[in-house]
Amino acid sequence: MYGKFLHVDLGSGSFRDHVVPEEIARKYIGGKGLGVYLLDSLTPPGTGALDPGNVLIFLTGPFTGTPFPTSGRFVVVTRSPLTGMYVDSHAGGHFAKELRMAGYDGIIVTGKADRPVYLWLEDGKAELRDASDLWGKTVDDTVFAVREKTDGSARVAVIGPAGENLVPIATITMDSDSDKSRAGVAGRGGSGAVMGSKNLKAIAVRGTGTIPVAEEGPFREQVAEIVKAINANDQIHTRRIVGTSSLVESMSRTGILPSYNFQQGYFVPIYGLVSTNLRHYTKRDVACSNCPIICGKVLEDDGHPVKVEYESIALLGSNNGVGKMPLLTKAVRICNQLGLDTISAGGIVGFAMECRQKGILPEAPEFGDAEGQAKLLEDIAYRRGLGAVLAEGVRAAAGKIGKGTDHFAIHVKGMELPGYEPRATWGMALAYATSDRGGCHQRAWTVLGELDGHLPRFSTEGMAKTVKTVQDERAAAYSLVVCDFAPYSQERALACLRHVTGWDISEEEYLTAGERIWNHIRMFNIREAGISRKDDTLPPRMFEDPLPMPPRGEEKVSLKREDFDRMLDEYYELRGWDSDGRPKAETVERLGIQVRI
Amino acid sequence: MYGKFLHVDLGSGSFRDHVVPEEIARKYIGGKGLGVYLLDSLTPPGTGALDPGNVLIFLTGPFTGTPFPTSGRFVVVTRSPLTGMYVDSHAGGHFAKELRMAGYDGIIVTGKADRPVYLWLEDGKAELRDASDLWGKTVDDTVFAVREKTDGSARVAVIGPAGENLVPIATITMDSDSDKSRAGVAGRGGSGAVMGSKNLKAIAVRGTGTIPVAEEGPFREQVAEIVKAINANDQIHTRRIVGTSSLVESMSRTGILPSYNFQQGYFVPIYGLVSTNLRHYTKRDVACSNCPIICGKVLEDDGHPVKVEYESIALLGSNNGVGKMPLLTKAVRICNQLGLDTISAGGIVGFAMECRQKGILPEAPEFGDAEGQAKLLEDIAYRRGLGAVLAEGVRAAAGKIGKGTDHFAIHVKGMELPGYEPRATWGMALAYATSDRGGCHQRAWTVLGELDGHLPRFSTEGMAKTVKTVQDERAAAYSLVVCDFAPYSQERALACLRHVTGWDISEEEYLTAGERIWNHIRMFNIREAGISRKDDTLPPRMFEDPLPMPPRGEEKVSLKREDFDRMLDEYYELRGWDSDGRPKAETVERLGIQVRI
Repeated sequence: MYGKFLHVDLGSGSFRDHVVPEEIARKYIGGKGLGVYLLDSLTPPGTGALDPGNVLIFLTGPFTGTPFPTSGRFVVVTRSPLTGMYVDSHAGGHFAKELRMAGYDGIIVTGKADRPVYLWLEDGKAELRDASDLWGKTVDDTVFAVREKTDGSARVAVIGPAGENLVPIATITMDSDSDKSRAGVAGRGGSGAVMGSKNLKAIAVRGTGTIPVAEEGPFREQVAEIVKAINANDQIHTRRIVGTSSLVESMSRTGILPSYNFQQGYFVPIYGLVSTNLRHYTKRDVACSNCPIICGKVLEDDGHPVKVEYESIALLGSNNGVGKMPLLTKAVRICNQLGLDTISAGGIVGFAMECRQKGILPEAPEFGDAEGQAKLLEDIAYRRGLGAVLAEGVRAAAGKIGKGTDHFAIHVKGMELPGYEPRATWGMALAYATSDRGGCHQRAWTVLGELDGHLPRFSTEGMAKTVKTVQDERAAAYSLVVCDFAPYSQERALACLRHVTGWDISEEEYLTAGERIWNHIRMFNIREAGISRKDDTLPPRMFEDPLPMPPRGEEKVSLKREDFDRMLDEYYELRGWDSDGRPKAETVERLGIQVRI
Repeated sequence: MYGKFLHVDLGSGSFRDHVVPEEIARKYIGGKGLGVYLLDSLTPPGTGALDPGNVLIFLTGPFTGTPFPTSGRFVVVTRSPLTGMYVDSHAGGHFAKELRMAGYDGIIVTGKADRPVYLWLEDGKAELRDASDLWGKTVDDTVFAVREKTDGSARVAVIGPAGENLVPIATITMDSDSDKSRAGVAGRGGSGAVMGSKNLKAIAVRGTGTIPVAEEGPFREQVAEIVKAINANDQIHTRRIVGTSSLVESMSRTGILPSYNFQQGYFVPIYGLVSTNLRHYTKRDVACSNCPIICGKVLEDDGHPVKVEYESIALLGSNNGVGKMPLLTKAVRICNQLGLDTISAGGIVGFAMECRQKGILPEAPEFGDAEGQAKLLEDIAYRRGLGAVLAEGVRAAAGKIGKGTDHFAIHVKGMELPGYEPRATWGMALAYATSDRGGCHQRAWTVLGELDGHLPRFSTEGMAKTVKTVQDERAAAYSLVVCDFAPYSQERALACLRHVTGWDISEEEYLTAGERIWNHIRMFNIREAGISRKDDTLPPRMFEDPLPMPPRGEEKVSLKREDFDRMLDEYYELRGWDSDGRPKAETVERLGIQVRI
C-alpha cells in the first residue's frame, strides 16, 4: 500500500524501483521516519552534503493524496549543507498527490548528472532530459518552461538560481505562486543546494492512477468527522482568513516577535505587518490538495502573485526593521523566485544589518532599508560581493567576519532562528536547542501554550517534558505527513491509518515510532556532524543580553544559563540520553534502532 | 450654511424652524457642541430625563453629507435617563445625510404626543402621523413598516420595545442591519427611552436637495488628499477587513479585555471571538455614507443580518463568559432588534452573572450561559422578572439588591463601562472617571498609546495632560461630527471647514471650542445632576481587587487610590477646575460660556 520509491541515479542515468519492506515502513511510518531510515542506510558515512554520494529523498506519507484532510504535503530529506546534519523539509501544494498518482510514494536521488537535467515522470515512466536551457531561470520561469516541455498539468518541483549556486539556504519549490492552487516550498536547510549539486534543475510528474485505500467506506466516515471538526474550529477560521499571519500582532504585544536582529521582542510600526493588513492586500486564497483549511494567502508584488506567511513577515519584516506589507511582499517574492529560504535569508540580512549598525560592515544595508535588503537578497542568491560572504549562513559568516559577531549570529547548529524570541518563550529556547535540524520551531511549538496559560511562562517547570513529548508526537505526525494545522485526534488518525494501509498501530506504538525516529536522527547527527551537548545551545545574545519588552522596552527579561541548563538536563534524562546528549545503549535497544556507526 | 433646525413640539403637534445664529454655530461648531448649547438653553433646569420638558435633539455637523470622508454621522443629545446628566450619542449610517438633503441640519423634539406617532419629513415638509400600529414592533420591523407607509428609500430612525418601555439603556437606531448600506445606532445613555417617553416611535426622512459647499473646487482637492491618506493607512486596512474587532486578541493578550464582569483582563477561549473568526462569519461589509473605510461587518443569526463590533464582543462575549461568535451574534441581534445598548446590556448581564456566582441572585444565568443571557436581555427590554430590576442599570440594581453588590457594579456615574479594563490601562481609568457622559471610552482613548509605547503603561505620568487634551480635541471633532477612525490632520479639517462654511477658524480657536464645550457640559452636569469630585471615580473593585493578568492570572496588577487621586488632581488643575471639580470663574470667563444656574 505504501513504500514504493523510484530510485534515480543521476551518475549513471539509471532508474530502478526501491520497495521498502512493510515491517520497516510500519516501524518508521513514512515521510520523515522513512526519510532518516533511508538516508542513513543509503549514504556512506562521512559523505558531504554537496558530494554526489549524498542522497536526496522526496517522500510522501501513507495518507498522501487520500481524502484525509491536509494530506497534500511532501517531505524532502537529505543531509543539510547548512548544518551538516540530517534535515527534513516539508512543503504543501499538489506535487505529492500527483507523485502518488504517478505510481510512486517517493523518489530517491543519488549521484550527479554531468550536465543540467530534469526528471520527467509520467504514470510510472521516468526519463531524464536535458535542462541546459533551464539553468539560470527563476522558480516560476522554470515551472512554466518545464510544463511547456512536458504537460501543462504537470506538477513541478524546481530549484532557482540559489540552488544552482549551491547556496546552503536554497529551497526546493513545488509549482508556482502564479498557479491557481497553492505552491509549496521545502524551505529550511538547503535541500535546494543539494539538488543543485546534482545538476538536477527540476522534477515534473503527471499521474492519472488512483491512490489505494484498503477500507474506503469507514475511512470516508472518519474523514467526514475530521472535516466537521475543522469547520467548527475557531483557530482554523483564523487560518482560513489570514493564514499564519494571525500571529504577528500577538507576538509583538507579548515580546516574542523578533525585531532588529533579535535585539527586541516587539516592533513599533506593527500595523504595517498585522494579519488584517495582509488580508487587505490578499488577492487570492489558496489551498493544498485535500485541505479545507485554505490557509495560503497570495498577495502581489508588481503584478506577480506572492504567498506570504508569518515567518517571512517576522524575519524579513520586523527583524530587519521593514514595516510595510508591500515592501515585505517584494522581499518574499525575491526569495521565492531565486529559491531562498525566507527565514534564513531574513536572519542573514538582519545579521548584516546589525553588523552595519555596529560599524562592522559599512557596506551592509541599515535596519529598515527595504531596498538594501532586496539587493542583498539577490547578492546572496548569486553570491555577489557581500552576498558571497553571507550566503553560507550567519554561523559561517560570523566565523569569517570575526570581531565578536558570533554574539549576534542568531542560529542553532548553523540554522538561523525562526520568528519566536527564545528569551520570551522558554519552551522555544529548549525546542530550538534540541531540534533535530537546528534552529527550527516546528518540532515543538510551545508559544501559544505559554501565552494561553496551558504552559507556565518565564518558567522552566515542566518544559522538558512538554518539549520531549511534542517532539516525539510531531516526529510521528511528520511521518504520516500531515499538516501542523489539522485538528484531529491521534485515535482518529490511527483509525484512518488502519483503514488506508491495514496497519493496526496502537497509540503507544505510534508515539514510540516518533521517539525512535527522533533518536535515530540524533544518532545520525552525532555520527555525521559530531553533535553533542555543546551544540544543544542558543546564540550568546540569548543568555547575555536582557530582552527589551513591549511597549517601550523599559521592561527587560532574561534567560539565565542555569535555568536553560536545568531544562536541558531534565530533557536528556527524559530522553534516556547521557549527560553529553548521547542516547544510552538501553534507549537505542528499547527503540529497536539499528544504526551503522 | 449650517444651523437650521426643525423644531417639533409633540405636545401641540406644531412645527417651526429654529435657526441657530451664526456666531453661536461658530462658537460651538455643530453636533455635540451645539447640542449642549441647545439642550442647556431649551431645557428648564430640573427637568427629568423622561419628563415631557426634556429636549431630544438630533444633530448633524457642518461636514455632514458633503464628500468629507466619514461625514455620514449623526449625534443625538438629550438628558440621559441612565445618568441624569447630559448625553451625546453618535451613530453612523445614512440618516444624517438624508436629513440635510431634506433641508435641515437637525431636529429638536420637545413635549410628548398623546399617542404613538412618527414624524415624516420629506424635502422640508414635516408631518406627524399615527404610529399606534407600529408600537411594540422590533427595530427592523419598524424600519420596514415606516418605509412602507412613506417612501421605500426613506431613512428611518426608530426605537424598539426597550425604548417604548423606557428602559434607560434603550437606543435610537437609524435604518436596519438588513439594508445593503450600514445602519447606525445611537447606543449609549438611553436616548431611546427619551424618544419613547415622548411617544415618538420613528422619524423618517427623504431629501433630494443638495448640501451647500461654499468653495467646491478647493474642498474637493482637500478631500482627495484625505482619501489618499485613508487608503495608505495600515490601521485603516485593518478596520476595512475586520472592523473594530481587530482589538479583541490584543486586548486579551495585554490584560485589557473585560472578562467575567471585570474579574479578569483576559479570556482563555479567545479564539472564538477574535477578529479573524468574526471575518470568517462576515457576510457583508457595509459603510456609512461618504466613507471609504467600510468598517461595518455584518454577520448573520438565523439568517438575519447583524452588525458586530468590538464593544459588543467584549461586553456580551468575554465579559459574560460567552466565547463563540455565533452565540455572541445572537445576543447582539437581540439587543439590536429590541433596541438595547450592547455595552450597558452586556455589563448588566455580567453584573447579574456575578451575583449568581456569589449566590446573591440564584435565578440569574451563570457565566458562559449564552441561552440564559439571551433570555435575560429580552426580560430587560420588556422589564420582566429579574429583568425589571436590572433594566435600570447596574447602579440602580445594586442599590436595590444591596448585599455589597455595589463593589462589582461596574459603572461610572451610572453608565456601564465599555471594553477596556481600567486597572490595565490607567489612562482609561482617568478618562472613564472624567468622561462627560459617565463610563465611556470615546472621549479620550489612550489604550493603543499605552500598548504601543507612546504613553507610559502602569504609570500616572503625563496622563492627566493627555486625557484633557484628547477630550478637548474630541469634543471639537464630535462637533464637526466626523468619525474617530478618520486620519486627517486638524489643519486639513479646518481648511475643509473654511471651504464648506466660509468660517475661518484657527487651530487654537478650534481647540478652545472643544474646551468650551467640555466645560459647558460639566456645568450642566453639576447643575442638573449634582456632579462633583465624589462622582469622578471608578467602581470599588478597580481600587480594591488586584486584576489577574494573562496568561494564567498568576500575575496581578493594581490601581492604587492615591495614584488615581494624583491624576485627578492634576487633571482638575489643568482644566482650571477647583478641587471639587467645579470650573473656576476665570475658566468660565476665559471660555466665554454663558450658563444658566
